[in-house]
Amino acid sequence: MNEQLGYDVEDLRVGMSACYGKTVTDADIVLFAGVSGDNNAVHTNQEFAATTAFGGRIAHGMLSASFISAAIGTRLPGPGSIYLGQQLHFRAPVRPGDTVNATVTVKSVDLQKARVVLETVCRVGTTVVIDGDADVLVTSSLRRLSKSQS
Amino acid sequence: MNEQLGYDVEDLRVGMSACYGKTVTDADIVLFAGVSGDNNAVHTNQEFAATTAFGGRIAHGMLSASFISAAIGTRLPGPGSIYLGQQLHFRAPVRPGDTVNATVTVKSVDLQKARVVLETVCRVGTTVVIDGDADVLVTSSLRRLSKSQS
Repeated sequence: MNEQLGYDVEDLRVGMSACYGKTVTDADIVLFAGVSGDNNAVHTNQEFAATTAFGGRIAHGMLSASFISAAIGTRLPGPGSIYLGQQLHFRAPVRPGDTVNATVTVKSVDLQKARVVLETVCRVGTTVVIDGDADVLVTSSLRRLSKSQS
Repeated sequence: MNEQLGYDVEDLRVGMSACYGKTVTDADIVLFAGVSGDNNAVHTNQEFAATTAFGGRIAHGMLSASFISAAIGTRLPGPGSIYLGQQLHFRAPVRPGDTVNATVTVKSVDLQKARVVLETVCRVGTTVVIDGDADVLVTSSLRRLSKSQS
């Protein structure tokens, strides 16, 4: 672990996993619309959204994606890691009241470059709503040691 | 255009472009931390963040990515389009007070499947902070016509 209680690359093994879950409320959707500027009617206008294929308001895809960022930035690898990339496939809509569970799982570890690839999946119940991979730069206990000795 | 004033796939040509810009304020970062659950100290604790390689607080990468969602959902292709996927490469940090311009440009149009690929780039001044591609399902005037005639 680093001094911020995040994992160093040397701590990480393929298969390690962490989850962050959050219920998406109307308040989240309203605040996300304001912060992002994405006030598309399918997110904010129930009467209009009811006429679409979704049959009612849905949350922004990037709102659920932000729970992946929370899982990575606060749990695995956690503080000290730097987000380099994220691939997102939006598979199914998330509706107000749904609880989204974002699970991140170590797929590969590159000790040399201090980089890891994580499988990132968001589910509502058993339904996958987002999947993809994240690319993260991690702290290294060996690099800290070699710096402190130089 | 569809009835929500978004582009139909038949309206779209390679090279068409739109931009959404937003200044990232402290309020945006605080609200995004609350909504996402990503309260990593590098975003919220100036004293700690000053000790990191960033030299101060930075915005969440997914906050800037959400401006791409705004450009797609409200401008090009705009209302009626369905976000299928997004690839993100985080290239440089965004700091409180920076203005992020998210530009989306049509890279390819698949009339058969009513899908488009957009190049998506976020810049602060001339610095690219995020790049990647988006995959979007678009409304089709031909499909509407064939439905209304059947």
